[in-house]
Amino acid sequence: MHDSHVIIAHGNGGKLMRQLIENVFASRLASPLLDVNVDAAQLPWPAEGELMITTDGFTVQPLEFPGGDIGSLAIHGTVNDLAVSGAEPRYLTLNAFLEEGLEIALLERLLDSMSAAARACEVTIVAGDTKVVGRGECGGVYFATTGVGLKQQGLSLGMDRIRPGDKIVLTGSVGDHGAAVLLAREDYGLSGDLHSDAASVLPAARVLRMFSGLRFMRDPTRGGVATVANEIARATGLGLYLSEVFIPVSPPVASVCEILGFDPYYLACEGRIVAVMDGKEAEAAVSRLRETGAAPGAVIIGEVQSGYPEVVVRTEFGGERVLEELENEPLPRIC
Amino acid sequence: MHDSHVIIAHGNGGKLMRQLIENVFASRLASPLLDVNVDAAQLPWPAEGELMITTDGFTVQPLEFPGGDIGSLAIHGTVNDLAVSGAEPRYLTLNAFLEEGLEIALLERLLDSMSAAARACEVTIVAGDTKVVGRGECGGVYFATTGVGLKQQGLSLGMDRIRPGDKIVLTGSVGDHGAAVLLAREDYGLSGDLHSDAASVLPAARVLRMFSGLRFMRDPTRGGVATVANEIARATGLGLYLSEVFIPVSPPVASVCEILGFDPYYLACEGRIVAVMDGKEAEAAVSRLRETGAAPGAVIIGEVQSGYPEVVVRTEFGGERVLEELENEPLPRIC
Repeated sequence: MHDSHVIIAHGNGGKLMRQLIENVFASRLASPLLDVNVDAAQLPWPAEGELMITTDGFTVQPLEFPGGDIGSLAIHGTVNDLAVSGAEPRYLTLNAFLEEGLEIALLERLLDSMSAAARACEVTIVAGDTKVVGRGECGGVYFATTGVGLKQQGLSLGMDRIRPGDKIVLTGSVGDHGAAVLLAREDYGLSGDLHSDAASVLPAARVLRMFSGLRFMRDPTRGGVATVANEIARATGLGLYLSEVFIPVSPPVASVCEILGFDPYYLACEGRIVAVMDGKEAEAAVSRLRETGAAPGAVIIGEVQSGYPEVVVRTEFGGERVLEELENEPLPRIC
Repeated sequence: MHDSHVIIAHGNGGKLMRQLIENVFASRLASPLLDVNVDAAQLPWPAEGELMITTDGFTVQPLEFPGGDIGSLAIHGTVNDLAVSGAEPRYLTLNAFLEEGLEIALLERLLDSMSAAARACEVTIVAGDTKVVGRGECGGVYFATTGVGLKQQGLSLGMDRIRPGDKIVLTGSVGDHGAAVLLAREDYGLSGDLHSDAASVLPAARVLRMFSGLRFMRDPTRGGVATVANEIARATGLGLYLSEVFIPVSPPVASVCEILGFDPYYLACEGRIVAVMDGKEAEAAVSRLRETGAAPGAVIIGEVQSGYPEVVVRTEFGGERVLEELENEPLPRIC
């Protein structure tokens, strides 16, 4: 039991905790900046650029799902929040909440996955903390990550820059993460060919921020593309008009949504960007996203117009429907 | 139910979540730097000093206890980790994990307490995230905070600076937090006059770091003073000799420990510093801590000696006992 599963004493600050931190965490997440014996890490910092910070909690169930797991998701989620802010992610801190009885082998898989994702995104984990809680709490593992990044001086992004006539760019299909996680729960007796889109959006963000007409980026996680669109409409007082025919939904996601009654526009993505761009540059940006391979599925899905601040989808057959702000639909534990 | 308790839909990214964030969180934690509509916050940063970062999770039970609560503790714990690293805390990020069914009024009390603690420590909450999990998970609330601070250029603290002959300074009585939380659980049928020592150690850290002979500071949280002493012995290869008669234990803490069989040296403090100082400066530092009111209960509790790397307590009557590294004693959910 001591060796194979987490026990309460792993959280008491003593010998077992030190061994867990050294053998399970530090061995996987080691870097010259991570010293498990200090209270705070010192960050080397370049003379130029603006310091950006973000934080996220992760409670996804199941912990492992097709296309990802809570370990890599905790890296990608935080890297992506920095990326859509226009920053280059540099450093991460990690909080782990572990449930008594958690299999150590599972924890090791999650940390291996986390480590690989961090290396791929070139971010360093510089500080961490671990708590152990009783059986039945925290669904095995929760993670919380904080990310620190550097934004080029003068790069200005924000909803306040959005203007009528701007185009809305989406870097790939919608709802893959939400649908894959829902199906992985096996609550529905369905099995499918679904994979989460969970990934770093940094390559796509780097391409997009080369365009001076870039106004704003956001990754459509909880609440999906519909929620990002509503946030924009609400903040700008402008209308967003999306074309159903241009919004990519993969066939298995469409099937699952049809069977379970979900709208894919409200399902979480974990590897996409919604970007608002000057109408004159949107085509060029999409071409560049496709050519570079940063986002082979990039498309223009709509535009911003003056008028009533709402999100309208023009359907394939010429109709219109309004995407309301998400209310009571509970899609818990998606990230 | 919508208004008085947390429901799953408060975590879905939609309208109820926005209202919770705006009305419950942002209204209490507001600052010019906290914009709940952005993915990452930009931090103004002075040209000089070294950037320090730390992170902590909080799962204490009960959520409110004599002398504090999980809200103020989440601020003090992270502020204290920066303070003992020699830094001035500046910015905090906050993750909240909320249990379905949590009373909103309780959450509001915790956030009010958090807000007051942050103001008192002059730290600004700049980014946050909230997740809602199902009933039975997360004991009502977990918090995770990450702190960013600034350390004076050239200030060097670390266990590697500790030398034989150095003195060990403690800024107050031990075990108050651990004993107060244990008693507040009412598992023991005891009631007492106990209060947690949970507080910012920043005033004491500021006094201590004025002394060039300061080698190292740490706040003795999980595992208490005994665990910090063991960490020092382990890292330095030196022996630590503590005098029982000089280590302050308040009478109610001593009583509780006697009745329940706990050793107060292993109980968590949340408002103390263990500092190692050049022997020649320790007396002056203690005087200054007392005179300034930064730590009226500051004392020298022992010294560092060459020899076998262990922690030895000299008892009142001339005996010696070794404080071993904490092993299986489970004192869960103390912070």
